[in-house]
Amino acid sequence: MSSTPVDIKDVRAASKRIHSWVHRTPVLTCQSLNNLAGRQLYFKAENLQKTGSFKVRGACNAVFLEKESNPDSSGVVTDSSGNHAQAVAYAAKCVGLDCTVVLPRGAPKVKCDAIRGYDAEIVFCEPTPISRKETCIRVSEETGKTIIQSSDNYSVIAGQGTIALELLEEVPDLDAIIVPTSGGGMLAGIGVTVHSIHPKCQVYAVEPVGKDLQRCLEAKQRLWPNPPLYLNTVADALRLQAIGYLSFPIICEYASHRVFTVTDDQMIEGMKLSFERMKQVVEAASGAGVYAAVNLMNQVQPTAHKVGVVLCGGNVDLDNLPWLTPTITY
Amino acid sequence: MSSTPVDIKDVRAASKRIHSWVHRTPVLTCQSLNNLAGRQLYFKAENLQKTGSFKVRGACNAVFLEKESNPDSSGVVTDSSGNHAQAVAYAAKCVGLDCTVVLPRGAPKVKCDAIRGYDAEIVFCEPTPISRKETCIRVSEETGKTIIQSSDNYSVIAGQGTIALELLEEVPDLDAIIVPTSGGGMLAGIGVTVHSIHPKCQVYAVEPVGKDLQRCLEAKQRLWPNPPLYLNTVADALRLQAIGYLSFPIICEYASHRVFTVTDDQMIEGMKLSFERMKQVVEAASGAGVYAAVNLMNQVQPTAHKVGVVLCGGNVDLDNLPWLTPTITY
Repeated sequence: MSSTPVDIKDVRAASKRIHSWVHRTPVLTCQSLNNLAGRQLYFKAENLQKTGSFKVRGACNAVFLEKESNPDSSGVVTDSSGNHAQAVAYAAKCVGLDCTVVLPRGAPKVKCDAIRGYDAEIVFCEPTPISRKETCIRVSEETGKTIIQSSDNYSVIAGQGTIALELLEEVPDLDAIIVPTSGGGMLAGIGVTVHSIHPKCQVYAVEPVGKDLQRCLEAKQRLWPNPPLYLNTVADALRLQAIGYLSFPIICEYASHRVFTVTDDQMIEGMKLSFERMKQVVEAASGAGVYAAVNLMNQVQPTAHKVGVVLCGGNVDLDNLPWLTPTITY
Repeated sequence: MSSTPVDIKDVRAASKRIHSWVHRTPVLTCQSLNNLAGRQLYFKAENLQKTGSFKVRGACNAVFLEKESNPDSSGVVTDSSGNHAQAVAYAAKCVGLDCTVVLPRGAPKVKCDAIRGYDAEIVFCEPTPISRKETCIRVSEETGKTIIQSSDNYSVIAGQGTIALELLEEVPDLDAIIVPTSGGGMLAGIGVTVHSIHPKCQVYAVEPVGKDLQRCLEAKQRLWPNPPLYLNTVADALRLQAIGYLSFPIICEYASHRVFTVTDDQMIEGMKLSFERMKQVVEAASGAGVYAAVNLMNQVQPTAHKVGVVLCGGNVDLDNLPWLTPTITY
């Protein structure tokens, strides 16, 4: 009997539902990073995933379920401006659903092009969190399209859990997995999966400075301001300060209450290590995981021998690599 | 009966000799590049190879053979300043041979560090081709160390042939393979291998402007000046103008006489495509292959359906990516 609304059966069902449409990404190893870390690191290369990030797993699961449960669906809408938007657009295209993405006015052309490349429609709104949310709800009400949230959605959480399913199939005896964390959908999905299959393995979040997840987990309380802030971080995939309402209780139950906190410079260092040693293009959020795996495990679980790291995405502006440009302030 | 001094048996023997010490690199595919090219592309990811380039295959074969044939060997020496130097240093360390690398004064610290990281000794010389050659010969005479040439060496050629052995095992029905070409060791090795296993597959060189390999192949003559020049190209792995003396006849026999010639801008475009679409860090020489596969196959073999491309290496100065910096002139 499961104590959370998402369990391993949902994750396995998600895996079956999405497997023809997403890559089973490779698990990469790198002797030089092992040497630096003093342990064996196993990198789940979601930077090589369809659409360039893990988000496509949860998006496909949620969108395909929408199509299954409602064959006459009017389509889907989302207000993510990041990897989740591309992922939802891709998922909708896979099953022939209409898709609208709400983007703030002034969103980079490269993002708009990628989204339109999957035949999704873009509706522009004011560049504020409230305008985005309101516009998304308005589109949904006017068109009947279902809103696909980026992490506060049980189907998305189950989809992200498939990362751990695959990783543990290839490396069944991991001692720990490090998960870059923003809204917490991936952390919750991986937590559920690991707890069921290999509960001895610790699941750690890695976060940017200012998120303070550890304090919330220790208190088992959402201590973030309402409305939550965007964090000032180089990792645009990690800007949400608060964990989602649905993810938070799952994370409290299944993730370690010890959290890795990294600065922008540390994320950038991890990102550059990935480029240099693994020859993998990854975004700063992935760099957070690399940095923690190489440098911070001793503080938390010094005896961990085999450590998994999710390289969560590879969508990088190659003309503005962060070790070559001053850190951007939002 | 073989008409060239390297045949498939040598390549298979090399594969057996080196396989515990080099990676069997993955063959990558990318839907978005397939769409651009209008055909199926199969990328042999030697950027993920030990030491960051394919050079380690030939270097291991040559150095291990030296150790086998002469257990009391005084070691090896090379005057390459590029990927071959690291590869020889790595190979020597694998079998416990002493290694000296002759480098021009002023060689980048990062290169020196990588070579010393494999316990090789560095001897500096003047930054001219003649001083390098002379210093290498002097070290060899004074120490008894065997010179390991970077491409003009049958054992190296056989080692590089293992790339095609692995690629054809995974994609047996390739119509063509595109090989970035400098001294020609890889092209010769791949030519020999493909001719023996799957002779219908065309083997194409891709070269920087100024090499003029096609004219030499058509004439079956070395038309390069003596001493040959270094080419002015962004791809430091492709600076040799002339094909080696041992490689040239093999290439005349087994490689297509149609050669792809690419400009610096085209190589850089191919390199950036690899970063962006495949999330693979590759050097400009690999970019030459990507560019040719995506844009130039129509000129030469428009019906080719499945095309292999060697991503020959991934050793890139991440602080000087060529699409962000003015092209360097040598």
